[in-house]
Formats: sequence, C-alpha cells, structure tokens
Amino acid sequence: MSKSYHIAIVGATGAVGVEILRVLERRDFPVASLRLLASARSAGKKLRFKDQEVEIRKLEGEDFRGIDFAFFSAGATRSREYVPVAMKAGAVVIDNSSAFRMQEDVPLVVPEVNGEDLKKHQGLIANPNCCAAILAVAVAPLHRAVGIRKMIVSTYQSASGAGAQAMRELESQVKQFASGEKITREVFPHQIAFNVFSHNTPVAENGFNDEENKLIMETRKILHAPEMVVVPTCIRVPVLRAHSEAVVMELARPTGIAEARRLLSEAAGVEIVDEPAKNLFPMPLDATGKLDVLVGRIRKVPGDDSSLALFVSGDQLLKGAAWNAVQIAELLK
Amino acid sequence: MSKSYHIAIVGATGAVGVEILRVLERRDFPVASLRLLASARSAGKKLRFKDQEVEIRKLEGEDFRGIDFAFFSAGATRSREYVPVAMKAGAVVIDNSSAFRMQEDVPLVVPEVNGEDLKKHQGLIANPNCCAAILAVAVAPLHRAVGIRKMIVSTYQSASGAGAQAMRELESQVKQFASGEKITREVFPHQIAFNVFSHNTPVAENGFNDEENKLIMETRKILHAPEMVVVPTCIRVPVLRAHSEAVVMELARPTGIAEARRLLSEAAGVEIVDEPAKNLFPMPLDATGKLDVLVGRIRKVPGDDSSLALFVSGDQLLKGAAWNAVQIAELLK
Repeated sequence: MSKSYHIAIVGATGAVGVEILRVLERRDFPVASLRLLASARSAGKKLRFKDQEVEIRKLEGEDFRGIDFAFFSAGATRSREYVPVAMKAGAVVIDNSSAFRMQEDVPLVVPEVNGEDLKKHQGLIANPNCCAAILAVAVAPLHRAVGIRKMIVSTYQSASGAGAQAMRELESQVKQFASGEKITREVFPHQIAFNVFSHNTPVAENGFNDEENKLIMETRKILHAPEMVVVPTCIRVPVLRAHSEAVVMELARPTGIAEARRLLSEAAGVEIVDEPAKNLFPMPLDATGKLDVLVGRIRKVPGDDSSLALFVSGDQLLKGAAWNAVQIAELLK
Repeated sequence: MSKSYHIAIVGATGAVGVEILRVLERRDFPVASLRLLASARSAGKKLRFKDQEVEIRKLEGEDFRGIDFAFFSAGATRSREYVPVAMKAGAVVIDNSSAFRMQEDVPLVVPEVNGEDLKKHQGLIANPNCCAAILAVAVAPLHRAVGIRKMIVSTYQSASGAGAQAMRELESQVKQFASGEKITREVFPHQIAFNVFSHNTPVAENGFNDEENKLIMETRKILHAPEMVVVPTCIRVPVLRAHSEAVVMELARPTGIAEARRLLSEAAGVEIVDEPAKNLFPMPLDATGKLDVLVGRIRKVPGDDSSLALFVSGDQLLKGAAWNAVQIAELLK
C-alpha cells in the first residue's frame, strides 16, 4: 500500500456512512480516492468531501477493484452479499453490520480495548454494535485491572441507532406536537417523542431481544471474557444521536472509587465527567460529536465492596459506529 | 365522620394537586366540601370540581378546622409547618412530601402492598416517592411469594416528577426546537428535550442522589424488607408524565417465568403488558392516565434460575402520587 489509500464507503448516504466521511475529514485520513456506494435510489447524488463533490455510485455490480479499505454500513444483507466481493478484490473490509461479528475468524474490535486482535485479521474486521463498543470502552479498564464477573446494563438508546430516517421521525414528531398536529410514525413501531420503549428488534427464545443478545455476545468477545454474565435491558429514548448506559458491575475483588477513577482516567478513549457537587455527569447532549466516551456516577454498591456502578454516554454514530471504524483503519494503515 | 367528607388539598394548583382533584372526581369520592389551598400567588383563582368552581384560598394562617382528610402536596417545607396544624385540628393527613416518610410512627403506604400498615396510623400517613410506589406495586407480588434479596433498578423518569413547570419546560423546549429557536431552561439544570440526565437532586455522601436514597429506603419500608439491597440509578428522560423502571432482581429461590407471570396476574394494581411476538411491552405513553402499573419484559437471567428481570411503567402523577393518596383515603373512610 502507498501512503494514501483508496477508500470505499458502502451505505454512504446513511447516518453512519455520512459520519464516516466526516470522521475521515476530521482525522485528516490520507485518502487517495473515494468511492461512495449506495442503493440505485441515491446514485448520481453528490456528497462533499473536503473541497470535492463526490458522486455516489450504485452498489449493484461493484467489483471493489483498486480499493484499500472498504467501510460497509448498509445492513447485514448487503454485507453478506458484497463483503466477499470486496475481500476477493483485495480490499480490507471494516464491516459495521452484524453479519460477521460473531464469526470466529473475524476480529471484533474496539481499538482501545482489543486492538491487538487486529493482528489476526484475514481481510475482514467487524465493527461492534454501538452499545457494545461504548460499554467496552467504559468498562475495559476495570476488567483488565480487576476482572468483571457480571454486569447489569440498562440502556438509554438514541434514535440514530435506527438510522437517519429514525432521527428525522423523532424531529418530525416533536414538530407535529409543537404545531398541535396528530403525531404520525413510519420508522419506529411506537411513538418515540415523549416516550421510551423496549428496543424494536425481535425478541429471542431466551427473552432478550436481538439488540440485547448482541450486547451480551459482543461484550464477551471484545473483552475476551466468554464467561462474563451480562444482563441488558435495551430501551429507546427520545434522544437524537448519543447512547447512554447505566451499569452495575460485580468485580473479582474489592475495588475502591479512587482506584476505579485512576484506572478510568489513565484509559484511552475515556473522559471522566463526574462532579457530584455540581450534579454534572455524562449526558447524551454532551457526548454528541465527541470521539471519547463519557463516564461518571462512579459509586459503590452499599454493603458490597466488590461492586461498582457507572453511568456512560457515547456518541452512537461516532464511537458506536463511524469513529470506531475509521480508528480501526488508522491502526491498520 | 359522616358518609361524605370535608377535604382539603394543600398545593391544589400543582401538578399533583390538580390530579388529586381529578382522581376524586373519577373515583366519585364522597366529598362534602372542598378546601383548596395554595400560595398567596394563586389565592382567588378558581379550579373546577365536578360542576362547581372552587375558589383557592391561601395556605397561610389556615387552621384546617372541620377537615376530615387533608392531602398535602406542596413540598416538604410546607408539610413540616402545616401538617401538625392539620393534625391538631383533627384531620387525617395524607402527605405526598418526603418530610415524614421515614419517621417510624408514620406509615408509608402503597395500598396494594402494605395497606395493613394504615391500621397503625396516628393521624398522618405518608405517600411514597413516585418511583418507590410504582416499583413496589410491580415487585411486591414476587417479594411476598418468593422473597427479593437484591434489586438493580434503572429509572426513566418523566418531567412531571419535577412538577407542572418542568412539564411545561419540556414542551417549551421542543417548541423552541421546532421553530429553530435557541433552547432555554429555567426549571431543570440541564436541557431535558433530546437529552437524559442523572436525577437533579443533591448527591449524598454514599454517591447516590437523594432520589435514589429515597428509592432505597422507602422500598425497604414499604416492602417490610429492611435488609433488601436496592441499587438504583435515577435518570430523567424527555417524557411528560409516566415513569419507567428496568429492574433485575435476585430472589430467595429459583422462580420460573410462568410462576412470576401468575403471581403478577393475580396482583391488584398490576396490568401485564408482555407480548414478545408483537414487541409490545410497558411504555410511559400507554401508562399515562392509568391507575394500574404496567409490567412486562418478564425474563430470566441466563444461567441464574433465582434471578428475574422486568420492565415497568406507571403514571407518576397517578400511582406515583395522586391516585395512591386518594386510594389511601378510600381505605380509611
């Protein structure tokens, strides 16, 4: 490879695709050329990258020849069809879909947590579920130093996790409310404005929905902790683009607040926001646009020296998707 | 007492006060007379009760003579000053503030859960914190039959918990967003629209905020479980008037889904909303206006037969406040 790279983005017009473009700019990633791919519907439209206007091509029939890094963010079905094509053409694929995440020969990587797993890649690296990536950054420092046995996780997930249309649906519902119109919906199964609801993925046999099962399985894989008990409740909230998570964890030994705070403050990708006197803790509005994950409300469980609680907020589109993907490419280049 | 009752409502113009009035109507409570009390600012205004217009009087100097039931919902400071006056005048006081809740000689009552504690009252009954009341209804059937040792609770609390002005602030912020104006705030310390934040009560020495410490202490008192471990994370969400709670509980013995569902379905005050195939579970929008608490997402913790998880939604202004208070009066009359 040369010192600059030929990049493809599959799903370039989606919420995550657009953010990948913005993060490549923001990080001044050495881009030799940019191939933007999307459905036939978007073909011919243009997206800005630095001072160029780049025309979107349709994904159908794409051969990925000459591409160094292919970022996929167009859903599991399209990844299953086109990731093998891109790999065959010699591209290194960073796939944001769930299609290959749990495949044993595919590393599932959060660079600050298990960047070393990249060494084993065979042309394909999976980018984790947004909640799993944000959670892993926040808890890895404690898991590495102390060991986490069990985590109870309740999420406060933004509309962006369901894509750009879902974000627009939240905006349009509050506008309908503001003008006294009837609130309508097309994307989510329930009204999202002024409401919260259990994550809208199918509920599996075990009683957990697909989002929760991803959080369980992917957290174990990223943290190299196949035995870790993870008990998630994944809930959508009327927030635009950052996810929050309330975490209570059982550790392998007694751990004080001071030790936890030191471990977190030394960790890459973590910004501690924990000012009880000001009642200032992580909030999705403050996490929006940030590459780092905000961690706070670090406290002990009364009567149990080996348990700790945290509250975490991270930008779903950045650390939960686009930034993590570009960060993987930065490590590989 | 006669068959109809002389009622006073202190804080009649507040979010809860107005709901008490509505619930008295809805339940056709036998009201002989109604004395509406509020700050001097509201004195002279009128509130509708059935087909009458009742003038609001100022609380200052009120002697409560002739009152049978006095509902207090004007904050702890006013309760500390005027509850003793009302008791001295012979009224039975139902106090929605936190002033007397943890006092040993004051029953803290959720009628479906510990209605029998009313027998011990000495003229004053405390109405619990909204999250504690809603949680108690949902978990009491399991605690009674099986025993709960530990609960991890993450809340999704609506604006109504901070009063009518806070509800208006959420509405006004989404209207500002809709019209492209700058979002302003006066009531909450942080923007509530499109955001979530740690509950805005002072954080105590133990790392938990006052709301969380209320949830810990009051849950134990209501459930008669002084040893129960309760680990709450109380979070505000941009919802208008119903609270939700994600609960993971450790029970005293293995308990299956079928048993849990049966216990819940037999319990007063609980409506099961648990349809995995339709992805239909408790939501604050559906709980709004309901007297019962919605319970769903009943599932087991993988690998642990003695743990169960639930998701709960209840109307903060009704079961979390006004309805619980009127329900206490219904039991006492």
